[in-house]
Order: sequence, then structure tokens, then C-alpha cells
Amino acid sequence: MRKVKIHITLKEGVLDPQGKAVQNSLKSLEYNNVQEVRVGKYMEVLVEDTENIEAQIDQMCDQLLANPVIENYSYTIEEAV
Amino acid sequence: MRKVKIHITLKEGVLDPQGKAVQNSLKSLEYNNVQEVRVGKYMEVLVEDTENIEAQIDQMCDQLLANPVIENYSYTIEEAV
Repeated sequence: MRKVKIHITLKEGVLDPQGKAVQNSLKSLEYNNVQEVRVGKYMEVLVEDTENIEAQIDQMCDQLLANPVIENYSYTIEEAV
Repeated sequence: MRKVKIHITLKEGVLDPQGKAVQNSLKSLEYNNVQEVRVGKYMEVLVEDTENIEAQIDQMCDQLLANPVIENYSYTIEEAV
């Protein structure tokens, strides 16, 4: 069994209204030193071992988990019990 | 300037309908070796250096970014240009 930790982030230059909203909220709470907030997704996926697990994860990300037009993804694969 | 990378995840035992939906979608795409999916949030926050930046980040998470009743958070602080 493997635990895959996937980070999905908006590409540079893509507007992030959610991040902007969080930033404005932080500002209204007097956190005036916050310069930028970008919000992404984080997923932990538990998969049974297969041959070529990296190819599978790439395919899952491209097909469903991320939108390759506006998002980047990266992941790490760990041994799980 | 520091870049703070924040991970927000649901606590163990808290139901994750979004994760369940992703898991079902993966199953319908014939990824039959997927055992569990948990979905969380990932934020990158750019802040100006202050004294006691960790205390500030903790407070930001408790006050706004995470819901401490059902979510855990963790973060790393990096030097940014």
C-alpha cells in the first residue's frame, strides 16, 4: 500500500479569487504584513501497489484530479502500512 | 519575506464526502486499486518578516484559515525573495 500526497496549485498568472478573498479577510483582521495568498488543493490517496504507480498517478491527475489547463500538480509517494 | 506553506486536513474520523466523491469517480474510471481519498486544502501565503512569525501563523490558522473543531493544520516557513 502506498500513500500518495498530491498538491494541486493554480499556474502562475492564473487569477485566484479565493486566495484574494482570504487575503482581504486576513487584512481586515489586521494581519497587514500578508502580501499574497494562493489557495490550492491537497489530497492524500491510498492506493494498492501496482507496477508503474507513477504513470497511474499522472494519469489520474490529468484525467480527473487537476485541470491541466490552469493547474499544476506534484506528488510524493510514501510507503503506507 | 517568507513563504508559508500551509496544509489543512480533516481530522481522523471526520467524514470526507468530497474525498468519497473523488474516490467513486476514480473507481468509475477503472482505478480499482484506490483505497481511500482524503481532500484537504493547501495555501501558500507570502508574509513580510515579523518577530514571532510562527505565533502569527498559528493565530491566522485558528482564527480564519482552518476550522480547529474538525481540521488539523501544519505549515512550513521558507525564505522567499
